Amino acid sequence: MKVGVLTGGGDCPGLNAVIRSVVRKGVQEYGFDFVGVRDGWLGLLQDDVAPLDIPRVRGILPRGGTILGSSRTNPFKHEDGLRRVRRTLAAHGVDALVVIGGEDTLGVATELHRQGVPLVGVPKTIDNDVSGTDYTFGFDTAVGIATEAIDRLHTTAESHMRTLVVEVMGRHSGWIALHAGVAGGANVILVPERPFDIEQVCDQVRSRFKIRYAPIVVVAEGAAPRQGQTVLKDESLDEFGHVRLSGIGEWLAREIQQRTGHDARTTVLGHIQRGGTPSAFDRWLATRFGLHAIDAVRDGDFGVMVSLRGTRIVRVPLADATATKKVVDQPLCDEFGVFFG
Amino acid sequence: MKVGVLTGGGDCPGLNAVIRSVVRKGVQEYGFDFVGVRDGWLGLLQDDVAPLDIPRVRGILPRGGTILGSSRTNPFKHEDGLRRVRRTLAAHGVDALVVIGGEDTLGVATELHRQGVPLVGVPKTIDNDVSGTDYTFGFDTAVGIATEAIDRLHTTAESHMRTLVVEVMGRHSGWIALHAGVAGGANVILVPERPFDIEQVCDQVRSRFKIRYAPIVVVAEGAAPRQGQTVLKDESLDEFGHVRLSGIGEWLAREIQQRTGHDARTTVLGHIQRGGTPSAFDRWLATRFGLHAIDAVRDGDFGVMVSLRGTRIVRVPLADATATKKVVDQPLCDEFGVFFG
Amino acid sequence: MKVGVLTGGGDCPGLNAVIRSVVRKGVQEYGFDFVGVRDGWLGLLQDDVAPLDIPRVRGILPRGGTILGSSRTNPFKHEDGLRRVRRTLAAHGVDALVVIGGEDTLGVATELHRQGVPLVGVPKTIDNDVSGTDYTFGFDTAVGIATEAIDRLHTTAESHMRTLVVEVMGRHSGWIALHAGVAGGANVILVPERPFDIEQVCDQVRSRFKIRYAPIVVVAEGAAPRQGQTVLKDESLDEFGHVRLSGIGEWLAREIQQRTGHDARTTVLGHIQRGGTPSAFDRWLATRFGLHAIDAVRDGDFGVMVSLRGTRIVRVPLADATATKKVVDQPLCDEFGVFFG
Amino acid sequence: MKVGVLTGGGDCPGLNAVIRSVVRKGVQEYGFDFVGVRDGWLGLLQDDVAPLDIPRVRGILPRGGTILGSSRTNPFKHEDGLRRVRRTLAAHGVDALVVIGGEDTLGVATELHRQGVPLVGVPKTIDNDVSGTDYTFGFDTAVGIATEAIDRLHTTAESHMRTLVVEVMGRHSGWIALHAGVAGGANVILVPERPFDIEQVCDQVRSRFKIRYAPIVVVAEGAAPRQGQTVLKDESLDEFGHVRLSGIGEWLAREIQQRTGHDARTTVLGHIQRGGTPSAFDRWLATRFGLHAIDAVRDGDFGVMVSLRGTRIVRVPLADATATKKVVDQPLCDEFGVFFG
Repeated sequence: MKVGVLTGGGDCPGLNAVIRSVVRKGVQEYGFDFVGVRDGWLGLLQDDVAPLDIPRVRGILPRGGTILGSSRTNPFKHEDGLRRVRRTLAAHGVDALVVIGGEDTLGVATELHRQGVPLVGVPKTIDNDVSGTDYTFGFDTAVGIATEAIDRLHTTAESHMRTLVVEVMGRHSGWIALHAGVAGGANVILVPERPFDIEQVCDQVRSRFKIRYAPIVVVAEGAAPRQGQTVLKDESLDEFGHVRLSGIGEWLAREIQQRTGHDARTTVLGHIQRGGTPSAFDRWLATRFGLHAIDAVRDGDFGVMVSLRGTRIVRVPLADATATKKVVDQPLCDEFGVFFG
Repeated sequence: MKVGVLTGGGDCPGLNAVIRSVVRKGVQEYGFDFVGVRDGWLGLLQDDVAPLDIPRVRGILPRGGTILGSSRTNPFKHEDGLRRVRRTLAAHGVDALVVIGGEDTLGVATELHRQGVPLVGVPKTIDNDVSGTDYTFGFDTAVGIATEAIDRLHTTAESHMRTLVVEVMGRHSGWIALHAGVAGGANVILVPERPFDIEQVCDQVRSRFKIRYAPIVVVAEGAAPRQGQTVLKDESLDEFGHVRLSGIGEWLAREIQQRTGHDARTTVLGHIQRGGTPSAFDRWLATRFGLHAIDAVRDGDFGVMVSLRGTRIVRVPLADATATKKVVDQPLCDEFGVFFG
Repeated sequence: MKVGVLTGGGDCPGLNAVIRSVVRKGVQEYGFDFVGVRDGWLGLLQDDVAPLDIPRVRGILPRGGTILGSSRTNPFKHEDGLRRVRRTLAAHGVDALVVIGGEDTLGVATELHRQGVPLVGVPKTIDNDVSGTDYTFGFDTAVGIATEAIDRLHTTAESHMRTLVVEVMGRHSGWIALHAGVAGGANVILVPERPFDIEQVCDQVRSRFKIRYAPIVVVAEGAAPRQGQTVLKDESLDEFGHVRLSGIGEWLAREIQQRTGHDARTTVLGHIQRGGTPSAFDRWLATRFGLHAIDAVRDGDFGVMVSLRGTRIVRVPLADATATKKVVDQPLCDEFGVFFG
Repeated sequence: MKVGVLTGGGDCPGLNAVIRSVVRKGVQEYGFDFVGVRDGWLGLLQDDVAPLDIPRVRGILPRGGTILGSSRTNPFKHEDGLRRVRRTLAAHGVDALVVIGGEDTLGVATELHRQGVPLVGVPKTIDNDVSGTDYTFGFDTAVGIATEAIDRLHTTAESHMRTLVVEVMGRHSGWIALHAGVAGGANVILVPERPFDIEQVCDQVRSRFKIRYAPIVVVAEGAAPRQGQTVLKDESLDEFGHVRLSGIGEWLAREIQQRTGHDARTTVLGHIQRGGTPSAFDRWLATRFGLHAIDAVRDGDFGVMVSLRGTRIVRVPLADATATKKVVDQPLCDEFGVFFG
């Protein structure tokens, strides 16, 4: 049996750990052959694949990034994309795919599987917003980096008695903000799932200053004030259509400073949250995902995604997993009621 | 309502995070008063308790250790221990206890609850061997430290073409060895739950050298060779009755060196696995345990232990949780078959 | 003898280590008494001082920030500032001051000493731009944090084949940019001391892409393009007069993207460079500075600053040290010629 | 011109950084060709050399170990060793060598240079005991690891009120013990250069317990008690002639426990001090050493070693540098008088 492996979407610590365990178990236990697909779906469109074996995956467990490269290419947005994908798979005799990716990449996988391509999905995103799994790998690493940054900012906040706003990743979900905010001892945590009231935030800030402590505000990049409040406008996208690095965090610091009269500054953590060596938790999870993904391939159990449930790895239908995003829900926020504004 | 908080057993990153969230939520949401009990059960025997309030728990979230101190004292091993515990609780008007500890401390809590003392348990151990919860806090930190150490040892092993044996904590369970071994890319992982065959270990070592890579062997301090094989004897305890720091790891290096003819060295990680700032994962878990423990107190739901199940915190009967240790089972080991000797 | 200790200017890892060693040696070896001055010079203006003893400095060695608080207050900008400073010193019987600060704080110290106030200076700045000393404490920590960030960004740059611009601290000097850029393996390093040619930077970027590697550009916040080239204007200051977090780094990413046609992003490291626990190097240096500063006080050798020369701590006249900033000079840049654009 | 590069002796973070900067500058600025010699002097004895170019040194800056391998082989201990070295150099047309190593490797280099082999030395050792240079690379990384370990042990010591002994590397010199001990806030620091009095150590331990704090004792592996005191004997070497991992540290814990009646434990840091990614300081130093070493080759300035003096890299005669070890001297110890027993 010949198996293709591809990684799609944004950089995420643990991708290499999945590739490594898929290939090691596939070769050693099942005698499979492997090819690596370059740059996600792009490699299948452009017939850019290369053999993948155990020597090739040696030493990659602790390395960030992906040895296969990645892209955000969607084959269904190319005319005859599906045909080209099939042709590449046929040309190399690929019997099954292991697709490692986030919402977009797995959405494509879901559709390809419907069209008859035999594949198994592995969920990947630092944002932790894939349904059907307790956690995705990359998330723990991102939370760890953000928490360490918050730890460092505490001493600056205290020494200068100013508010420090920390903007973390999360356009659509607040998982990183919530976990890093709780772990870092933030005084206010703002997530996309719950529009915030800027005056409530300022009340929290003021009450912190009253006891002579400096507040830390953690905000997900996708968080937004309630309707009717001053809103980011043209600032939110830059001329290339990127969300600006300095969006909501800077707005918050400005508003807090003006409304409370206390100095406020912003730190935007940005890409450092998604690179570098994966945490032990993420290496463990990614390694297990890989081992179970290749088991599913051997079982001919296609159209599934491996996922974490408690301490066990299970298989769930890809279609279910990609139907909705997993968001920070109200009951979980309520747990931390005392910590929020 | 007045609530007492105590921490028992070995040092564990996250203890302070539990204390902090118990007190913050208890005071702010429920208006409870708190006292801290010094040095675990010893403080109840010796009437060593002191008020605990929000200013006292400020800034302790990232700190290792416990502001309350700890001990391994068991009140049931003291004549009239139970009576003295009751007297201390009565003298300070303590209505309920939050008991943060491992197997021994929670075992005492189980018995005290049977005797009518109202209390709620919080599981704590870097060893992760408490039943009834997916994970205990402290474990992720210990695994992270051990994994980072293994990462460092890889380069030494490769540069000198020698076997490096890493002895990690775990007298009765192999959780740290298994997780850190998998995350660190070890070639052999030895756990107390599965007696090993020294010749199989050496075979793994030899096959690694054949491809010109240097092997890393991770061994839990409680792992042991199969019956009939050369065994540690008088070496295993020192004159004070401690398990010697340099037990199984050194024995292994010696055997591997003699049997394979390749140089082998041991590193015993020791206490650095249990101290210092908790990981973000452990701070999150410990904080949630604290929040749920004080909820159980408010509900008058005594005799329970808070525990992690998937992503949710639930309550389980203390008696169930302390009945058996959680061990590394065969199916989980089998998952990683390709990585073991 | 009674000695006052104060810390002025921005947060800097190692301040507490100096305070601790000054007090420990002063009390234990010389039998001095100590007072701590709150919030830099402000505490002397407002008579905000408090006793400082060994129990007060226990456990602060690894902590960022300063237990004394800090400010940027300049007593010479207050009418009768000098008189109020003298009055506070007299009221508390302070015989000498240990002044820990950067360029501004030490500038004030230089003038106060001229006016007859007996004091010893200790240089502090993460920017490393104080003359007369090989290094200042705080710098090594900042460089370490920036280097770790660059390590993380490499994997993202490679996985997505985009330019990553990292903006580090340094308004007037490029020490952090140079050290972290070299240590992080940056492809272009831009410092305030050398205006850059944006087209040369883009040439470097292009040559990196040609060999299919993604470029990392490290830029000090105070770096600027050569005269005549497109310049930051109203963007450079925000409405509060702060230098915007997103100044030169964002401008660079925009220019590089437009000129090379390759995707480019910016990460602004910001305040995480100045907080948190000091590195071992900084703790060592700060501790020694403290020990030598109190020796100078005992010797009655006032108006000096302790400084590092090779591996020795020496005393230099404060007036010399504060006369000019230490900048990244041409010969040092030339050493790294191959790494620059 | 063709230049050979070799690394000898123990693993040390920063070796790859030297190799990288030697090759990059040599190729890009001077147009040199390079060969890498495998496994130190062994590669010259066995004619094991291979071409080395810029693609080969990409991405190695942050990696521990050495891509060239290392050994402790001494060609002068082999009959006709010198002849074989010369033959290998001639066979590959090697015009000059860059030799990266510690005392032993540089001692061989000194002798080879006397015999007419054109070479430049680069000092390397985590022990920092090479004369003629302020610091060697690898040392800062080792001190950082040891300091972080001591930070972690503080919380365990405090929580359990026991003495923790930390044994760090340093058979002949106490640099790591001194720096990490000072940076980690140890209460007693024991170095090979100063035989200690076990009763004085115990006095320090007792005085620490008196104020209810737990002592940390940092001891270099080569430290020893004063003559006449109970001494390690047969314990000090194991059956393979290794110095046992658990020598002086365990002896100390045993003595302290018996003499003071307080619980004491040992942690032996071992090999984790010498592996893994180099600190920013070490990458900076190693990179500069490499750049200056290849400059010396270009200048035909052979028989020298590059060395750090203050902030400058200079050249010193190899013969001077290898004549004596650099030890921790009395004046430096006296600086920290208050911290020692």
